[in-house]
Amino acid sequence: MELKGKIRIIEDFPAKGISFKDITTLLNDKNAFRYTVDKMAENLKNKNIDLIVAPEARGFMFGSALAYTIGAGFVPVRKKGKLPCETMQVSYDLEYGKDELEIHKDAIKPGERVAIVDDLLATGGTISSVAKLVEKLGGEIVSIDFVIELTDLKGIDELKGYNVNSLVKYNV
Amino acid sequence: MELKGKIRIIEDFPAKGISFKDITTLLNDKNAFRYTVDKMAENLKNKNIDLIVAPEARGFMFGSALAYTIGAGFVPVRKKGKLPCETMQVSYDLEYGKDELEIHKDAIKPGERVAIVDDLLATGGTISSVAKLVEKLGGEIVSIDFVIELTDLKGIDELKGYNVNSLVKYNV
Repeated sequence: MELKGKIRIIEDFPAKGISFKDITTLLNDKNAFRYTVDKMAENLKNKNIDLIVAPEARGFMFGSALAYTIGAGFVPVRKKGKLPCETMQVSYDLEYGKDELEIHKDAIKPGERVAIVDDLLATGGTISSVAKLVEKLGGEIVSIDFVIELTDLKGIDELKGYNVNSLVKYNV
Repeated sequence: MELKGKIRIIEDFPAKGISFKDITTLLNDKNAFRYTVDKMAENLKNKNIDLIVAPEARGFMFGSALAYTIGAGFVPVRKKGKLPCETMQVSYDLEYGKDELEIHKDAIKPGERVAIVDDLLATGGTISSVAKLVEKLGGEIVSIDFVIELTDLKGIDELKGYNVNSLVKYNV
């Protein structure tokens, strides 16, 4: 299936000059959604993944279905203040200022095999923060899987040493 | 499976006096997560559901897996400003002030059969807003499905006339 035909491009969202990749049209199409999750699952076959870890909120839309189909548990990484129990935090730079991501401290046991999932790899800032959280808890990152990669933003350079995969690539 | 044993109770989160039902422990347990999604799916069998509609962000964690397994499309309902294309809005009351939820205008075609999914039914405010959005777009609400219902809060009264289901009930 040609997934690019299922992804809608919105120019100048959320800011002027950004060519936003809208995955809601892909999610809306039951065949395209199933195909996407199945392709991501294929890549995780025979890797004994214990947990899918995904950042809010678009990461949940693919991560949850993927965890379900490969038979893994699902771990949400959330913005500050959303998780109710004891958390580990990491802060990361935004264009202006900083933001914080959190994971429950008991969400990953040392040695558990993890795949990190998100919709899109841009600069890699969010996912390298998620990777830090997983490793601080002793998780082993077996794979990092995106639907879309924006190659010109070179997020892949932030994720050196990991097994990184994406189904669809755009320059920007 | 006794799902209550998989849900963690956190007292006084997010505010004093609230006994928060933490579903991250359920999601983390691959067998409990799969069982939960499968039980919700059982309820939607033979109902020809075209779309699962779910509000951010915990709704996505169950809605996406459910859409995948029953072979439906997935439609996210989001807080204001998150969806990139033309939206329909509905505002709803919070304890202090108001908040707005949005859906893409082209997310549902008239006559499409919808199941609305969320983790928890409390006062019913969020889900009755989601129901309004679905019906404004011409969707037919076939079922509304929760993991948890807090029965004393009588959210069910806000959802009269709908087929509402939940897997686990607590008084508060």
